[in-house]
Amino acid sequence: MAGNTLGQTLRMTTFGESHGPAVGCVIDGCPAGIALTPEMIQAWLDRRRPGQSLLTSPRREADQVRILSGVYQDRTLGTPICALVDNADANSRDYGAWQDLFRPGHADFTWQARYGYRDPRGGGRASARETVGRVIGAAVAQAVLRSWCDAHGLAQPQVAGWVHQIGPVALSEPFSFEYMENQEGPPVPLPGPLAALACPDAAAAARMAEAIEQAQRQRDSLGGVVRCVARLVPVGLGDPVFDKLTGVLGHALSSLPAFRGWSIGDGFDAVQLTGSQHNDPFLRGSDGSVVTQGNHHGGVLGGITTGMPLRLAVAFKPVATIPQPQQAIGSEGPPQQLLVTGRHDPCVVPRAVVLVEAAVWHALADLALRVGRLG
Amino acid sequence: MAGNTLGQTLRMTTFGESHGPAVGCVIDGCPAGIALTPEMIQAWLDRRRPGQSLLTSPRREADQVRILSGVYQDRTLGTPICALVDNADANSRDYGAWQDLFRPGHADFTWQARYGYRDPRGGGRASARETVGRVIGAAVAQAVLRSWCDAHGLAQPQVAGWVHQIGPVALSEPFSFEYMENQEGPPVPLPGPLAALACPDAAAAARMAEAIEQAQRQRDSLGGVVRCVARLVPVGLGDPVFDKLTGVLGHALSSLPAFRGWSIGDGFDAVQLTGSQHNDPFLRGSDGSVVTQGNHHGGVLGGITTGMPLRLAVAFKPVATIPQPQQAIGSEGPPQQLLVTGRHDPCVVPRAVVLVEAAVWHALADLALRVGRLG
Amino acid sequence: MAGNTLGQTLRMTTFGESHGPAVGCVIDGCPAGIALTPEMIQAWLDRRRPGQSLLTSPRREADQVRILSGVYQDRTLGTPICALVDNADANSRDYGAWQDLFRPGHADFTWQARYGYRDPRGGGRASARETVGRVIGAAVAQAVLRSWCDAHGLAQPQVAGWVHQIGPVALSEPFSFEYMENQEGPPVPLPGPLAALACPDAAAAARMAEAIEQAQRQRDSLGGVVRCVARLVPVGLGDPVFDKLTGVLGHALSSLPAFRGWSIGDGFDAVQLTGSQHNDPFLRGSDGSVVTQGNHHGGVLGGITTGMPLRLAVAFKPVATIPQPQQAIGSEGPPQQLLVTGRHDPCVVPRAVVLVEAAVWHALADLALRVGRLG
Amino acid sequence: MAGNTLGQTLRMTTFGESHGPAVGCVIDGCPAGIALTPEMIQAWLDRRRPGQSLLTSPRREADQVRILSGVYQDRTLGTPICALVDNADANSRDYGAWQDLFRPGHADFTWQARYGYRDPRGGGRASARETVGRVIGAAVAQAVLRSWCDAHGLAQPQVAGWVHQIGPVALSEPFSFEYMENQEGPPVPLPGPLAALACPDAAAAARMAEAIEQAQRQRDSLGGVVRCVARLVPVGLGDPVFDKLTGVLGHALSSLPAFRGWSIGDGFDAVQLTGSQHNDPFLRGSDGSVVTQGNHHGGVLGGITTGMPLRLAVAFKPVATIPQPQQAIGSEGPPQQLLVTGRHDPCVVPRAVVLVEAAVWHALADLALRVGRLG
Repeated sequence: MAGNTLGQTLRMTTFGESHGPAVGCVIDGCPAGIALTPEMIQAWLDRRRPGQSLLTSPRREADQVRILSGVYQDRTLGTPICALVDNADANSRDYGAWQDLFRPGHADFTWQARYGYRDPRGGGRASARETVGRVIGAAVAQAVLRSWCDAHGLAQPQVAGWVHQIGPVALSEPFSFEYMENQEGPPVPLPGPLAALACPDAAAAARMAEAIEQAQRQRDSLGGVVRCVARLVPVGLGDPVFDKLTGVLGHALSSLPAFRGWSIGDGFDAVQLTGSQHNDPFLRGSDGSVVTQGNHHGGVLGGITTGMPLRLAVAFKPVATIPQPQQAIGSEGPPQQLLVTGRHDPCVVPRAVVLVEAAVWHALADLALRVGRLG
Repeated sequence: MAGNTLGQTLRMTTFGESHGPAVGCVIDGCPAGIALTPEMIQAWLDRRRPGQSLLTSPRREADQVRILSGVYQDRTLGTPICALVDNADANSRDYGAWQDLFRPGHADFTWQARYGYRDPRGGGRASARETVGRVIGAAVAQAVLRSWCDAHGLAQPQVAGWVHQIGPVALSEPFSFEYMENQEGPPVPLPGPLAALACPDAAAAARMAEAIEQAQRQRDSLGGVVRCVARLVPVGLGDPVFDKLTGVLGHALSSLPAFRGWSIGDGFDAVQLTGSQHNDPFLRGSDGSVVTQGNHHGGVLGGITTGMPLRLAVAFKPVATIPQPQQAIGSEGPPQQLLVTGRHDPCVVPRAVVLVEAAVWHALADLALRVGRLG
Repeated sequence: MAGNTLGQTLRMTTFGESHGPAVGCVIDGCPAGIALTPEMIQAWLDRRRPGQSLLTSPRREADQVRILSGVYQDRTLGTPICALVDNADANSRDYGAWQDLFRPGHADFTWQARYGYRDPRGGGRASARETVGRVIGAAVAQAVLRSWCDAHGLAQPQVAGWVHQIGPVALSEPFSFEYMENQEGPPVPLPGPLAALACPDAAAAARMAEAIEQAQRQRDSLGGVVRCVARLVPVGLGDPVFDKLTGVLGHALSSLPAFRGWSIGDGFDAVQLTGSQHNDPFLRGSDGSVVTQGNHHGGVLGGITTGMPLRLAVAFKPVATIPQPQQAIGSEGPPQQLLVTGRHDPCVVPRAVVLVEAAVWHALADLALRVGRLG
Repeated sequence: MAGNTLGQTLRMTTFGESHGPAVGCVIDGCPAGIALTPEMIQAWLDRRRPGQSLLTSPRREADQVRILSGVYQDRTLGTPICALVDNADANSRDYGAWQDLFRPGHADFTWQARYGYRDPRGGGRASARETVGRVIGAAVAQAVLRSWCDAHGLAQPQVAGWVHQIGPVALSEPFSFEYMENQEGPPVPLPGPLAALACPDAAAAARMAEAIEQAQRQRDSLGGVVRCVARLVPVGLGDPVFDKLTGVLGHALSSLPAFRGWSIGDGFDAVQLTGSQHNDPFLRGSDGSVVTQGNHHGGVLGGITTGMPLRLAVAFKPVATIPQPQQAIGSEGPPQQLLVTGRHDPCVVPRAVVLVEAAVWHALADLALRVGRLG
């Protein structure tokens, strides 16, 4: 009945409808004494925000975070952190016309079936605007994990996602997982309007941008694949059996808007390998640590981190909202023609990069706080 | 710290190590008055059990379920149901030899890192034997969902999984999701040793069996893909945002042993389609219900069921245990050669079919019990 | 690690420090379609607010609720309801002087010990101001339970608390539990400044007011006992073993600020009775329902409601803040004399009445939503 | 819907009906590497077991614990610990005769109302036999807390409960909380049949025994009060606001069978004191630690432990089962005379001592494992 909380130790409860007064998050379980400023959260929100390029929706909300609780003088108190963003640019007139119709590919019908009552304004909570809360939670999770690593004398993890594929345009060699694991930090931002693409390959990014523009001209939309690596991940995070890292991460990723699939390590391609090819032998690293030769396993064995980089991929469907006439029905009455107008991205995949990274930070932080070994 | 419970209303806590006294499950939240017999659970356990064909491990445990609580005169009491299987055929001598080495592709190293202490007997709780608990829970979930559908005057859901791919051998047309949605019940069992394959295509099954036998001869192993459809699913199940059906199911599937990826609907292939191709227009069904033309969405929109068949796929890696010499290290000391002996499947994918179905039943039942609409 | 959520189906997460930007609550799990207006929440907040009489603290916050999510056109959406109150009248200068000292009877020392970092402004989250969130949650719970009762064709429950004792002044006959069970609605409000006392006996109320005034003159404080009955409670609420009504209610009540004890039915006096005196025989009521002769059990048997009125009592300690010199120490250094100035109630018991009622509504609503019997 | 789990980090799920195959507990979240033997659990079960004196029920079950999972070579694995007791001495014929009647003071009626179906054998799960699971969980919690204290270089806590009152016979001076805080270990066992009373005052114990025997002769029953102190409690345990120590402990205690009330510190007597009398000034202890002068607060301020001894009291009602004729009704039909036969304690208070201690150990351990301060 209550499905808006994620995490066990670092419990993130998100709230807010697309065109209601605000969207936000309460995070309970954050330890005390961690540095947390509005700017740290804002940086996450800025990456998620639409309106950052010609390719994306012109909705230009400030999305300025306000921290209402849990922080005093830029340090966490150990109490619940409530932070939110006011919905400044809401414009519900955009949506009113078809509020009785079930838009194809949208959640109108299913929310009506589930709840019997729904918010017609921009999809209400079924809008991707709910991810504001997830991103706020991720900023806190990142601060937590960094403090946790400091406290344990560990290196700082890096989580870097990128656009791997938009419609038919996918990255190819050398831009593999292995390549990205050997980079430092996020993909170098591309210049100009390609910046929003979070793509390490300028040539491919240009083709992706072209594909998006073409889709826009054709009043259509595209999906895509986000890939992500996490480097310098602490060894030993994951609580089998259900709260393996894959389980916790799978819960978060599989609940993202437009989710179609996710995979770890070699993913569906692992099926093409035999065990002898796929097993990554353990070696003693130069510093005495345990490492593996190869990383088919993608940083997780038995659901617990090995310390090798995480490798994951998430597929997103093409945007359901397309500004061309579509057949639609409502609760009753004959089919009608639906023509959605207003502001819409033809492709949300670039903006999903930050959501994938957010899920990784939250899962790692939640699992790190569970490590309660004695002695 | 406590990661062995799944579900919110139908809470399944599994327990047990591979070679400890027993493996089992406590299910809390099961409504009272539901018919539940040991035979209903046993049928699930029998499908999961190894040793059913020449292709699988010769470990032949009876795996007889015992219900210890929560049921009286074959009806549930509304109290916690504890059911378990004694580990009759445990043979820990098989495993002792390399108990200080970290087997490649296994969880030995990560469990040691996470817990600092581990059960060397057959992988302990990192063994796939933990899935006995999941399967017990699924039997209860199935009974719950069936009663719930009866109580709501709904048709009985059918959940049918099958082996779609083993190593390089994949099903092809006509054995698509669409084809399977139009069948009734599970794939027709193939005759003889192929029965264990749960594959609708006899010709492909024979090639899969051949591939497994070849892997066995080469002392190697294979992975594969299980697909699953669920028909006659109740409309309106799913609790956004985190407990969308995809979120709940994603949690369960992503925590399965050997998990590499999962997808819903068209999955990663959805990326190749535009929005106008992928959107499934709503239609009025002949009985007045709302249906869609096409099922790219795979039965879920906005994380809530549409009533169209669920379509999902899960990828599993090749078995880590291979009976050929491998390089390995332990906590300390130089690398050694490891040669694992004993009883092992060269391919566990056929036995994973029941696990995928189990996750679907549990997710649907857990979400059904959350439907608390008033009036 | 995360202790700010109460409830299983109707999950209330409260947040906010006394002198931070806001205090509030997110309620997840509220069914859709329930009438909920800001006025309904405001009525609860108004009862809790200080500054309602000469007897209580002069802090006069408007405490105006704002609903940020989960409600559209005065009906719940089934999504998380975030509602909060801005801290308008915060004045942290009152508290600065002794921020390094541990005030006797306060949580300064223990919060420092638990979290290593604390909000010195008015006690931060250790302030009774956190109960704003509880009261918001109760308003939602009340709306939920009323809708649930309507949907089940049941009479509307009434929950009525009153001040039973202030310092040495306790109510006596005829103002017993039995008497109050036979009233309808809350205690009749007394005229003038006694109104805030929520006491059914004008004569005793006058003596209580006198005792409070005397304590104030002596720069001291008083505690007291709140009693509460709930009439027309639905039969069959409570989820043994831990989530018996007493368990759920006990969790909430035992976490109230200044809590010292609580009891159900005859409470500690039950010890004076034998089983034959204490057992309440079952009778067939005039309408065929099952009732009991007598109500020693206080409306709960085996942790589940019988339909007889709930009877409960909660004891609160005298207010820790007293405006007289006290000995105090800090983390280090010698003892110092502490003289707390500012605005403080000499007795908070009258304001605790609404908190006790709030706990009852929430417990009943949370347990009602769990009733998932099939058929 | 699922009320059989207690705790957040150390999650105890109990199961089992009085006359079903077994009663037990699964504890999830126990850290790895903790010494845990069957004997450690058995010692707890032995204290809880009936049949230890002439004063208590002659049911003589062996109540031998079996550990089914989570422990290897007497050390915990970090995996769920399932431990149970087979119901060897079940005799359901004792109960069959009145299985359609609602026994006064029992949960027959309310379980029927809640679940629509119930186990008539000895009360099923409404029997006090469910506390076997709680006691198993307490043994694990005790082991956890002891390891946690060792790991943090803290002294070992002592939890000591005793019978303070049986019917009208209560301890008086000098056997106060203060007196018991100054003892070491549990109350010295009294000789002979009084041993079961767990009472520090031999003279009072003799009068209690006499009162119980008299009640037995009169075919009646008695209730009582258990008191408990916990010495050497770690400072800083408790997670406000709902999971204050009082909240967590209140949840557990308030769900005990026959619970009527509980209190902390001075409890209901605190109401007689003014703030200046009740406040316990902080002092610097001889070792530099922070202590209080006096212990009215009973070891908890703001819901967090101060390090001073915990003081608590729990009231239990007289046993509902009395072997004298009582009026009773069933779901339908006229009132009948009910005469319960079989084995029954006239007073369960002595056996409740171990249950109160169990709740304290579990609450402290659960809260200790939540302490996740960084750095």
